[in-house]
Amino acid sequence: MTPRSSRLIFVLDLAGTFVFALQGAGRAMDARLDLLGVLVISFAASLGGGILRDLLIDAAPPQALRDWRYPATAFAAGVAALLFHEVVHRIPGALLTGLDAAGLALFAIAGAQKALGYGLNALAAILMGGVTAVGGGVARDLLLNQAPSVLYADIYATAALAGALVMVAGRRLGLANGWAAGLGGLACFALRIAAVWFHWNLPSAA
Amino acid sequence: MTPRSSRLIFVLDLAGTFVFALQGAGRAMDARLDLLGVLVISFAASLGGGILRDLLIDAAPPQALRDWRYPATAFAAGVAALLFHEVVHRIPGALLTGLDAAGLALFAIAGAQKALGYGLNALAAILMGGVTAVGGGVARDLLLNQAPSVLYADIYATAALAGALVMVAGRRLGLANGWAAGLGGLACFALRIAAVWFHWNLPSAA
Amino acid sequence: MTPRSSRLIFVLDLAGTFVFALQGAGRAMDARLDLLGVLVISFAASLGGGILRDLLIDAAPPQALRDWRYPATAFAAGVAALLFHEVVHRIPGALLTGLDAAGLALFAIAGAQKALGYGLNALAAILMGGVTAVGGGVARDLLLNQAPSVLYADIYATAALAGALVMVAGRRLGLANGWAAGLGGLACFALRIAAVWFHWNLPSAA
Repeated sequence: MTPRSSRLIFVLDLAGTFVFALQGAGRAMDARLDLLGVLVISFAASLGGGILRDLLIDAAPPQALRDWRYPATAFAAGVAALLFHEVVHRIPGALLTGLDAAGLALFAIAGAQKALGYGLNALAAILMGGVTAVGGGVARDLLLNQAPSVLYADIYATAALAGALVMVAGRRLGLANGWAAGLGGLACFALRIAAVWFHWNLPSAA
Repeated sequence: MTPRSSRLIFVLDLAGTFVFALQGAGRAMDARLDLLGVLVISFAASLGGGILRDLLIDAAPPQALRDWRYPATAFAAGVAALLFHEVVHRIPGALLTGLDAAGLALFAIAGAQKALGYGLNALAAILMGGVTAVGGGVARDLLLNQAPSVLYADIYATAALAGALVMVAGRRLGLANGWAAGLGGLACFALRIAAVWFHWNLPSAA
Repeated sequence: MTPRSSRLIFVLDLAGTFVFALQGAGRAMDARLDLLGVLVISFAASLGGGILRDLLIDAAPPQALRDWRYPATAFAAGVAALLFHEVVHRIPGALLTGLDAAGLALFAIAGAQKALGYGLNALAAILMGGVTAVGGGVARDLLLNQAPSVLYADIYATAALAGALVMVAGRRLGLANGWAAGLGGLACFALRIAAVWFHWNLPSAA
């Protein structure tokens, strides 16, 4: 990887962290938490998935603790949400959905790639993509004592797993790393947006 | 250990995984989760305890991620529960209780043994037996936003801890590995079944 | 560190464990758990924070599993709470608040120090102080299916983080280890007591 592309990935990673932290802060304010509570939820929502992934793939201490810029980004998003919550509430829903889908794609691909790099098998790497992408949202909902929305959301974790699957399959088929990641991310993003747009659901027993 | 007995243990382990995943899937369907939610709960209910144990005893990445047959078994149970939920609902309660008690015994013994193998002390190994046996059920209930039933159930985790205690004590007293494991597993199974049969409860302050 | 001061720290650590376990047991009895449930909550409330810290800083197996005196202390507190719950209920609230603030200070400083010892950066060490101090309370509340009170409590986790910050800053400024720890612990304790006394709150969006 060239220094420039690795720098781009780092910036994208922080951007995804910011988006998920902002969302988490919004949910924390809805639950009437104070400043500290909002910061805790911002941290958990944006970095919880990557932390769980790093524990599972034996990469402790997690990236979020090795590099202070990750928690700093999460806390900055929490403070921004508190200071400008009027502005945050006025962001159009479509833009939020798009940013969220982009963060989902980014985290799913980055998580699956890191798991492959640590020697995990293909199935485990795909699962780690899912954990990275939605683990933070689960931590956020558990801390707010709410049922994890990801278990009820239309094709959300499914999109993350599908994107990770495309990436892992692409690498197995001999695609260059960047192409596999790009295809996987696009698959996740497109599936998530399509699911929201067309109200796609997975089957259930009920 | 002979290859044959180690193969038997592996098959039993997958069988226990299947039983706990099937139960988890049933609970997830009751909570009206969709296909993905059912698979997530199947995974967490059957493999969450072993994953937590492996993190605690410093055996990351956990067995459930090293060997794809564990998640595959959990997901197969989730799919089976969705496809044949009419059949699953008609399984007699006594059979379910027996299978569950067998899975509990198996996981408790396997967990305590693995902890001893990683050099933990006797008390920690017994606790790891309990974590392996009931950790998945706790993860399942937390994800479903329900109070962990294991904290309220009549002599459930207690049976797991008792079985692990018997196993660890047996090995301390010089019993062969297989005998200690067999005695411990039997103790857990018998205590659990007796507790259900005779409605035994632990004392409480209330 | 002299053997005598290291022995003092160990005794204080067990004392903090006892206090948090006693509190946890009280909450478990309020929730009508049985003996096993009370012991589980005693364990999680007093040792859960340190266990999570040890997983995050790559110190597995956690101290609570390496040294049997930690779980033994937690379980002893749980049994004491069950046997003498009339007595426990009659402990004056001011004394409980003081003991709790002392335990909070102790755990925050010990957690941040251990994180520094494992090579984490200053921000991560401060966060680990917070995790050690309040992680057990979060585990307790999650297991009881209640919203984590630490996210709503007036300046509780904040006091832990402030104490850890003072300790880390003191060491950066060249203070001796003992002085930095003492100052940090005092800051945490004083801030917590003052917050209770004067009903201080953090700002919130609401």
